[in-house]
Amino acid sequence: MSSPHMRHDLLHGNIKVFAGTGSPDLSVEVAKYLGIPLSEADIILFPNDNLFVKLHSSIRGQDCYVIQTTSAPVHRNLMELLIMIQTLKLDSAGRITAVVPYMCYGRSDRKDQPRVPITARLVADMIQVAGADRYITMDLHAGQIQGFFSIPGDVLSAYHILKPYLMKKIAKMQKPALITADLGFAKMGRRYANAFNIPLVFIEKKRIENKAMTEALSILGDVNESDVIIMDDEIDTGSTICEAISLAKQYGARDVYVACVHPVLSQNACEKLSKAPLKELIVTDTIPISPEKQALFGDRLTVLSIAPMIAEVIRRANQGRSVGAMFNE
Amino acid sequence: MSSPHMRHDLLHGNIKVFAGTGSPDLSVEVAKYLGIPLSEADIILFPNDNLFVKLHSSIRGQDCYVIQTTSAPVHRNLMELLIMIQTLKLDSAGRITAVVPYMCYGRSDRKDQPRVPITARLVADMIQVAGADRYITMDLHAGQIQGFFSIPGDVLSAYHILKPYLMKKIAKMQKPALITADLGFAKMGRRYANAFNIPLVFIEKKRIENKAMTEALSILGDVNESDVIIMDDEIDTGSTICEAISLAKQYGARDVYVACVHPVLSQNACEKLSKAPLKELIVTDTIPISPEKQALFGDRLTVLSIAPMIAEVIRRANQGRSVGAMFNE
Amino acid sequence: MSSPHMRHDLLHGNIKVFAGTGSPDLSVEVAKYLGIPLSEADIILFPNDNLFVKLHSSIRGQDCYVIQTTSAPVHRNLMELLIMIQTLKLDSAGRITAVVPYMCYGRSDRKDQPRVPITARLVADMIQVAGADRYITMDLHAGQIQGFFSIPGDVLSAYHILKPYLMKKIAKMQKPALITADLGFAKMGRRYANAFNIPLVFIEKKRIENKAMTEALSILGDVNESDVIIMDDEIDTGSTICEAISLAKQYGARDVYVACVHPVLSQNACEKLSKAPLKELIVTDTIPISPEKQALFGDRLTVLSIAPMIAEVIRRANQGRSVGAMFNE
Amino acid sequence: MSSPHMRHDLLHGNIKVFAGTGSPDLSVEVAKYLGIPLSEADIILFPNDNLFVKLHSSIRGQDCYVIQTTSAPVHRNLMELLIMIQTLKLDSAGRITAVVPYMCYGRSDRKDQPRVPITARLVADMIQVAGADRYITMDLHAGQIQGFFSIPGDVLSAYHILKPYLMKKIAKMQKPALITADLGFAKMGRRYANAFNIPLVFIEKKRIENKAMTEALSILGDVNESDVIIMDDEIDTGSTICEAISLAKQYGARDVYVACVHPVLSQNACEKLSKAPLKELIVTDTIPISPEKQALFGDRLTVLSIAPMIAEVIRRANQGRSVGAMFNE
Amino acid sequence: MSSPHMRHDLLHGNIKVFAGTGSPDLSVEVAKYLGIPLSEADIILFPNDNLFVKLHSSIRGQDCYVIQTTSAPVHRNLMELLIMIQTLKLDSAGRITAVVPYMCYGRSDRKDQPRVPITARLVADMIQVAGADRYITMDLHAGQIQGFFSIPGDVLSAYHILKPYLMKKIAKMQKPALITADLGFAKMGRRYANAFNIPLVFIEKKRIENKAMTEALSILGDVNESDVIIMDDEIDTGSTICEAISLAKQYGARDVYVACVHPVLSQNACEKLSKAPLKELIVTDTIPISPEKQALFGDRLTVLSIAPMIAEVIRRANQGRSVGAMFNE
Amino acid sequence: MSSPHMRHDLLHGNIKVFAGTGSPDLSVEVAKYLGIPLSEADIILFPNDNLFVKLHSSIRGQDCYVIQTTSAPVHRNLMELLIMIQTLKLDSAGRITAVVPYMCYGRSDRKDQPRVPITARLVADMIQVAGADRYITMDLHAGQIQGFFSIPGDVLSAYHILKPYLMKKIAKMQKPALITADLGFAKMGRRYANAFNIPLVFIEKKRIENKAMTEALSILGDVNESDVIIMDDEIDTGSTICEAISLAKQYGARDVYVACVHPVLSQNACEKLSKAPLKELIVTDTIPISPEKQALFGDRLTVLSIAPMIAEVIRRANQGRSVGAMFNE
Repeated sequence: MSSPHMRHDLLHGNIKVFAGTGSPDLSVEVAKYLGIPLSEADIILFPNDNLFVKLHSSIRGQDCYVIQTTSAPVHRNLMELLIMIQTLKLDSAGRITAVVPYMCYGRSDRKDQPRVPITARLVADMIQVAGADRYITMDLHAGQIQGFFSIPGDVLSAYHILKPYLMKKIAKMQKPALITADLGFAKMGRRYANAFNIPLVFIEKKRIENKAMTEALSILGDVNESDVIIMDDEIDTGSTICEAISLAKQYGARDVYVACVHPVLSQNACEKLSKAPLKELIVTDTIPISPEKQALFGDRLTVLSIAPMIAEVIRRANQGRSVGAMFNE
Repeated sequence: MSSPHMRHDLLHGNIKVFAGTGSPDLSVEVAKYLGIPLSEADIILFPNDNLFVKLHSSIRGQDCYVIQTTSAPVHRNLMELLIMIQTLKLDSAGRITAVVPYMCYGRSDRKDQPRVPITARLVADMIQVAGADRYITMDLHAGQIQGFFSIPGDVLSAYHILKPYLMKKIAKMQKPALITADLGFAKMGRRYANAFNIPLVFIEKKRIENKAMTEALSILGDVNESDVIIMDDEIDTGSTICEAISLAKQYGARDVYVACVHPVLSQNACEKLSKAPLKELIVTDTIPISPEKQALFGDRLTVLSIAPMIAEVIRRANQGRSVGAMFNE
Repeated sequence: MSSPHMRHDLLHGNIKVFAGTGSPDLSVEVAKYLGIPLSEADIILFPNDNLFVKLHSSIRGQDCYVIQTTSAPVHRNLMELLIMIQTLKLDSAGRITAVVPYMCYGRSDRKDQPRVPITARLVADMIQVAGADRYITMDLHAGQIQGFFSIPGDVLSAYHILKPYLMKKIAKMQKPALITADLGFAKMGRRYANAFNIPLVFIEKKRIENKAMTEALSILGDVNESDVIIMDDEIDTGSTICEAISLAKQYGARDVYVACVHPVLSQNACEKLSKAPLKELIVTDTIPISPEKQALFGDRLTVLSIAPMIAEVIRRANQGRSVGAMFNE
Repeated sequence: MSSPHMRHDLLHGNIKVFAGTGSPDLSVEVAKYLGIPLSEADIILFPNDNLFVKLHSSIRGQDCYVIQTTSAPVHRNLMELLIMIQTLKLDSAGRITAVVPYMCYGRSDRKDQPRVPITARLVADMIQVAGADRYITMDLHAGQIQGFFSIPGDVLSAYHILKPYLMKKIAKMQKPALITADLGFAKMGRRYANAFNIPLVFIEKKRIENKAMTEALSILGDVNESDVIIMDDEIDTGSTICEAISLAKQYGARDVYVACVHPVLSQNACEKLSKAPLKELIVTDTIPISPEKQALFGDRLTVLSIAPMIAEVIRRANQGRSVGAMFNE
Repeated sequence: MSSPHMRHDLLHGNIKVFAGTGSPDLSVEVAKYLGIPLSEADIILFPNDNLFVKLHSSIRGQDCYVIQTTSAPVHRNLMELLIMIQTLKLDSAGRITAVVPYMCYGRSDRKDQPRVPITARLVADMIQVAGADRYITMDLHAGQIQGFFSIPGDVLSAYHILKPYLMKKIAKMQKPALITADLGFAKMGRRYANAFNIPLVFIEKKRIENKAMTEALSILGDVNESDVIIMDDEIDTGSTICEAISLAKQYGARDVYVACVHPVLSQNACEKLSKAPLKELIVTDTIPISPEKQALFGDRLTVLSIAPMIAEVIRRANQGRSVGAMFNE
Repeated sequence: MSSPHMRHDLLHGNIKVFAGTGSPDLSVEVAKYLGIPLSEADIILFPNDNLFVKLHSSIRGQDCYVIQTTSAPVHRNLMELLIMIQTLKLDSAGRITAVVPYMCYGRSDRKDQPRVPITARLVADMIQVAGADRYITMDLHAGQIQGFFSIPGDVLSAYHILKPYLMKKIAKMQKPALITADLGFAKMGRRYANAFNIPLVFIEKKRIENKAMTEALSILGDVNESDVIIMDDEIDTGSTICEAISLAKQYGARDVYVACVHPVLSQNACEKLSKAPLKELIVTDTIPISPEKQALFGDRLTVLSIAPMIAEVIRRANQGRSVGAMFNE
């Protein structure tokens, strides 16, 4: 036997997890699942609005992970991620992985009109030029964004987290249906609907050019007397979802659940959603929600944690073991 | 004659100047000096804190300049610059020049301790990866930062703007002296002192590690009965300068003038400085100062414009003519 | 006036158009519209299956365009394109533009399962590494593929060619409707339906994993007593379209027109389609169709030429004028 | 002792060997010598002539080898190699080595006239841009082609395989001589002749410009009453070799053996060679020969396998041991 | 526990140290400290002034270090370093570290006038393009030069070597003081003065434009009746130092010690210095000093070796352990 | 007419020719042929063996050519070339062309044994990383070296200079023959022999491994009573040529002429050659020969100038006109 089985733990050095200020709680959870302490670093914002980073100890030759979401404040969070990566590189890290639970600028992924940017490509270029060797992220707005990177990455899906939770809910529902309120989520919506074995209903949304306002148009499918789950990859201002809730109610829906991966929840989204006739809002912790915002929902908010999944992916990436196998893929 | 004199205006397409939101007034002035209208673009901040840019007309094959300072909000301003550059590149600009009057992160230019970043290099990499062909900037914190770029650039100095203004002041002063309050500005301080033919006095500052607080220590030279000019490349929180003013006064100085290139003026710098025994604060417009802040100084604030210099450099860069010749270099 | 109006024709050298063997007729047409002769080159396939290229005359400093579609034989056509580009680069071309009417591997644009390639990104990398400065293409399978390129490009749409032709047809139709048979074409389908002011009907297709077979599922919308146009970006084996035709007929459609941008028409697609109850097949010449295949359709096949559009884009790219303006964008 | 002896098997992960469709039998042999199963992957050609690859299991962190020759169909084989490499890279392979027994386009290695490509450089660029970390190949047409790669590689020679086989033959020959029929093989020919301690005879060939036809000119040396071995690095159409055989016979040669590394054998090479007065054709399996072609030669064809050599090089590359030492170098 | 403690010695292969001809003795010392033999290589200068390198044995997969200073002959030494690096890369080294005790062209680190190079950046680019993965160097002329590299590196300081030696000297001195004769060394000078707890005295030097001549100007501080140490990062022609010695003596200094990191000692520096009223010259072996030159000083020359420090850094880099920790950083 | 004829002189700015210290006379000649003054620059060697360059005037946007051969002192000449290129780049040259009449390290063009460099590739990488856009050179040792560059270049041949000169000589010769003394020059030798319509005679040389000594072996062909021309691409130590002269004489040759492109003439080559029974030595000025060395030959040395050819290529490169057309190619 020429090539004996490797000791997996020797490939890439020890795991070192750093917490960006955008994902403090998630980072703690991930480290806890990995059974290791978070690696410490000073992250300081100087009066001149320049960030400064100093690692507390050497990571020479080690397998480093920076966990940093890029929700608001988007540009500070992004720059902090980049500075962390460069610091690790200059300090001779063995391998550097950017763990970005929510990748910003996903909606700027193509030129649907002349003279506009493809900012998601720019973000990919920035992460690479800073020195990342790999990246881990969750549910990109378009799968093609993976092609914007030259480095390999693991693009995970919260499907494996949301599915079992929602399955239990559905088991108790009356005439359940799944509603998708954005064409971009149609294929994922079908995947969920098939997995749940419930009908898929479309609510069509039309985005007004270069404006942030959205507008729910019409419903395709039957929701009368149904308990419904409205799903999307992210909830931004919540306008579309609120209109979808109204429309569903107007067409006879009973209990309305809303589920998404990325709780962007910008502007007064939480105020609007918490006042809507919403039975439960189910999200993940790819983006942290402030206690104040959480309080608006009382017990109607469920935050499912991606920490165990991220931790297991980090462990497998470190050991050179299959990530797809986690999901029977 | 094998190589006839070229028509300079044909080398790089027409000049197109775009204004970033960090430098609105300066951009207007530059365009005015060039005798052309500003090229227009929508720059929108979406509720999710993502920026969006759309150019109003094609710049295909043209010689484009994005004027954008990178003072606070540093990261938004930097990202806006990068998105503008990428948009121009994707729209097939002939040549793209980043005009950055104040380059952020200049003080993070080397690893003076282990496990820290060299963020100025990262910023240079980001500007290049976005697609800039060249850059124009003013008074880098360290001249070596030019070596962080792989693309050529014009690093200009406000020396040519401040010198004539201060010469007139000095002509009316009693026993004038120049004070430098930072060792990093020592060589430039000597250049000014020599040009003015007045003595150079040092005030030594010691920066406490990783803290933004500074501390003036001691004075080397004679300021008794002198009118003094305290100079530096930038004023951040103003603490150092205020201490230097106190120290100068304590050692017998008469009128105290303060001059710098980059008025960062973070935190309550303007409040402190405007209350200090300061005869006049002389700065340039590499960083805009809000009307409210300006008002604090009454007529004790002089803002010298870099717009004519920037405009002339753009004109010469476009025409393939010497920039050094502007300064008899 | 500092920056006088440029003579556009001096920016990039003279236009030189080369014809790849994949697009011989289109290249002739483009050159004719530009009023210039095609630039000549030997393109030889040696017995060992290696291609060889030799340009007939120098293109030093000139603005060169290689027109080469990448339909079957895909890999030979792609390699020929790359060799042409490298030859132009080594011969010191001023600028090299790959004009690829149909970009191969568009459907391999993301990892929808683990352990698969993103071949569209690989193709983009290959075109760039060969030495292309820019590219021109038509209707990418996904708009995001533009983000796979680091070089700028013009991604054109046959919308501006198909729309006026179909408008005339529709003017004579009874209760016209537009059918889209692929979710990926849904947004473009809506754009057409809105422009035509006719209803949009969906036929859902499900592709079996890693197999080329497709399967039409169900129809959403009313086609009874309607003249219908089934649209898609490309027709490959024709199975989906044939099933869509059957389904439409089954639901009461009258005349059935089929329109697409890219007539891939692989395997026995032409046999199947020509035998289907099809009133007219409308395609463009991004991919050439052999006379034998064309003959199967008699006068039921209409090929609209992209040559005038490509020629005009080349002219404008050469002159540094807006391409978007061609389409009032 | 500061640096203890390493466990070699831990450097690069486990060996994973993938078989491209161009080298199926060789791959099986290599895996057998390594004592490991071939790693499996689907390689599918879709009706639209696009290739698709899916690995059957994760190779994360492992030391991967893709064995794929690039003989005819050259462009499909090359693209398949590139897609395999990219797939491995995107799936986070630890290290990727392209094992290309016969490197295509070796004869396009320089610009011997203006306006032609250097396609061998393009091929090197393509293999690198796809993501290969290293390459292994056999007897490049010109040694300088190794300089076209930026990545390291092992360029092996069949000398170590052909020499012992031919030595045994020569032991039984009468007045043996070695004939080289191409100037490009002159130095290698001398190496063989010296090793065999037999005379070297030149037959000069002149290639007609841009044509595939070749022409034997004249013989330099004595072959009368000799058993001769005609050697070259590859046999393409066989014309040169057949003419060389005739010439040798005409000058009095007795038994004629032909030996080469790469049996390209394009067009009707096998028909011509099998009808020629040839005692034995000795080749390696860098390029597979179809059973039909093999049958034409009866027992006059000897195929020496490179599999043991390739396998041993892979093993040593994996373990960080010297490859040169295999050949006492 | 998910990530057990690694065996450090398995990360990067075994340490292989190669000696460039610029640093023969230092290399021997480093290898001795590491307890390993130097790896051997032929380094030949052909009559045509081309260098040739041949490694004596394979370094495949190993952790290679090339120790080569880049003092005079600067360009031969630099080229030899680059050729060594490329040879290691082409031979599939696991990791290549350029160990450059004295980095040439450090004074060409910025454009202090138009139309001049930044050669230190060029040198960094050359080391990287040759194939180095990392670098180790001592006391760069400006810390910012580290930002010229894209690869990580360890920039060490002789501070940790000079400090303890000088501390012992100072313990026996009368009224000791530290003199810095170059503004560029001011910050480092202060660090030493603080560590020694003795006063810092400035001697100002002005360099005449583009000339190698220097000129000592004036002294700031009290040296009367003092034993003084004049420090700098390097001594080139020795003119500045000799003038500083004279000036110090003129102002009443007793014993004069001179200490520097890099003994460039060009032209007749040794003659001048050995004749100066110098008690002791203390340098390191970043640059070798010929026995003839050493003899001029008798026992007044002390060469402190960096070999133990370099060896320990190599050991830690190989094992993935902290280098900063060597210095309590 | 869509694309009017361009004014060639507007493509690339004005021609600026800089003279490296390796090619002072050639540069003057080239400038004279172009009818322009040489662009001036200070090139200074500091006492510490560091080079410094300062351009006398701005070359912003202009078409710059640095003429610098890379014969001995090879490494200083090469570094000077690189520094000149970087200086031009940093000063915003429009286009930079390295004109290297003799490219060093041409014989290190492949790994003919393990663990050796491919230094010609390293040189190509260095020229590119310094910032050259193009290169012009003469008679590379192997044509494949052109494939080591990623940038385009013009590889010229002295064939067009030597041929007419030698034709006149041959017209007066008795039974003329051409001798090639190196297999690497065999193909070029044949080209000359065919052009002259005279026989080609081979003298075989064997180079002893890694040694600079060479050894002439045997003669193939008839030189009895012949006037002969011995040709090669370069003459290094002259040993091979001197042995070839002896051998030719020994075999009955009458007058012996020696012609080569590159007169490297290292060590005591001129002494040896001038004492040999040599009728005339014909070389070009790709490498300058000192007056002292020239004097050894009296009137037996003919130096043919490449200056007109280089000048014409520069002119055509500047104007975007064919270079191949100069040679009817």
